[in-house]
Amino acid sequence: MTVAFVSSGPGDPELLTIKALRRIEAADAILYDDLSAGPILDHARADADLVSVGKRAGRRGPVQHEINRLLVDYARTYSRVVRLKSGDGGIFGRLEEEIEALREAGIAFEIVPGVPSACAAAAAAGIPLTRRVAARRLQFITGHDVTGDLSTDLNMAALADPGTTTALFMGKRTFGALAERLIGAGLAPDTPALLAESVGGPGQRLVRATIATLAPHLADSDGPALILYGPLAP
Amino acid sequence: MTVAFVSSGPGDPELLTIKALRRIEAADAILYDDLSAGPILDHARADADLVSVGKRAGRRGPVQHEINRLLVDYARTYSRVVRLKSGDGGIFGRLEEEIEALREAGIAFEIVPGVPSACAAAAAAGIPLTRRVAARRLQFITGHDVTGDLSTDLNMAALADPGTTTALFMGKRTFGALAERLIGAGLAPDTPALLAESVGGPGQRLVRATIATLAPHLADSDGPALILYGPLAP
Repeated sequence: MTVAFVSSGPGDPELLTIKALRRIEAADAILYDDLSAGPILDHARADADLVSVGKRAGRRGPVQHEINRLLVDYARTYSRVVRLKSGDGGIFGRLEEEIEALREAGIAFEIVPGVPSACAAAAAAGIPLTRRVAARRLQFITGHDVTGDLSTDLNMAALADPGTTTALFMGKRTFGALAERLIGAGLAPDTPALLAESVGGPGQRLVRATIATLAPHLADSDGPALILYGPLAP
Repeated sequence: MTVAFVSSGPGDPELLTIKALRRIEAADAILYDDLSAGPILDHARADADLVSVGKRAGRRGPVQHEINRLLVDYARTYSRVVRLKSGDGGIFGRLEEEIEALREAGIAFEIVPGVPSACAAAAAAGIPLTRRVAARRLQFITGHDVTGDLSTDLNMAALADPGTTTALFMGKRTFGALAERLIGAGLAPDTPALLAESVGGPGQRLVRATIATLAPHLADSDGPALILYGPLAP
């Protein structure tokens, strides 16, 4: 009766850590989101109980409660339960709500960290996320708040800082509005922006543009996407 | 004649990715920093050329030029060279300078992303790095600029944001000064702060304090350390 929150990385099965692989291979049951699964589940035992919890971008609220309940139920049934999370589970993975449910039920857990999709996106593009002098700060944000829209109280001094690389998660729908606000706050329109889609997967697509010109490329974007902007290396 | 920049993760050999492991196993030569090595080098071929480039915190400038030159020399000598970097090599790994040296020499490279030490530190403490509403932004900074001191033009609006988790790399020496400036900029003195030292290794130590009370714990800190501050979960 323990739960391992296992970060599955950006999707490329080779970017799973050895620890994650061992937890998946040993699991009696694996609860996974659509984003975190794919070929990674091939490592599960043949008799493991594989449970899609069907979480997708844009569905929230009651779904999370249901996941919490399922997780507690499975943890009470099996000795080794894996809760698979895409990227690094601690970054925009809503881990705190599932941890809270386990705590209330008196169930022990561990967190296995992983490769954040932002790190994989930059690596795929052949660029570092930070650079001496030019990009001394790195920040991760999401493209929506609890309402599903761009947050209304964005810290523009942080977001429009020309010396910072920003990784925008789940931002395909709201990037156009964000870019307008960034430019309004003084960030140069020709600041580099990179769309990284389905990194490490068969549909990988990288689009290099600027914060002023990236938005039209997002409309025909299909897979899970991450957007980087800032003083990105050429 | 290719170079793989391989992220070795936070130090725990189980937090190496499968891809990193394969590159290390196949390498003819591995150039490593002291921070990135340890038991991870046990995966190298018995006949691999293992080269410590001896980079440590506090030594900069000419040392980096020497590393660039060594990297180009090794890449011209061997077909598969690994340049090992701790954490995720793209985050405060000074990757851009080594990439530039390879580009100038016409040598191809790839980047293998890894688990940032900040992700491993939070996981070891059993907390997520972001939380809905409370911690909607996550930022990575270093404790020194090119002079070795705390940067003089810090973006305090970004750093003292109460709705943000900050991961401070290489900040043991300067955290006291930073904390004073954070409190001066309005961040509550009882904002949680966590010191994570030698995460995943035999000397792992986690100290939970606040931004006002953490500094004295840093004096007796020995191993590589990461500091998290912000609305950290209990």
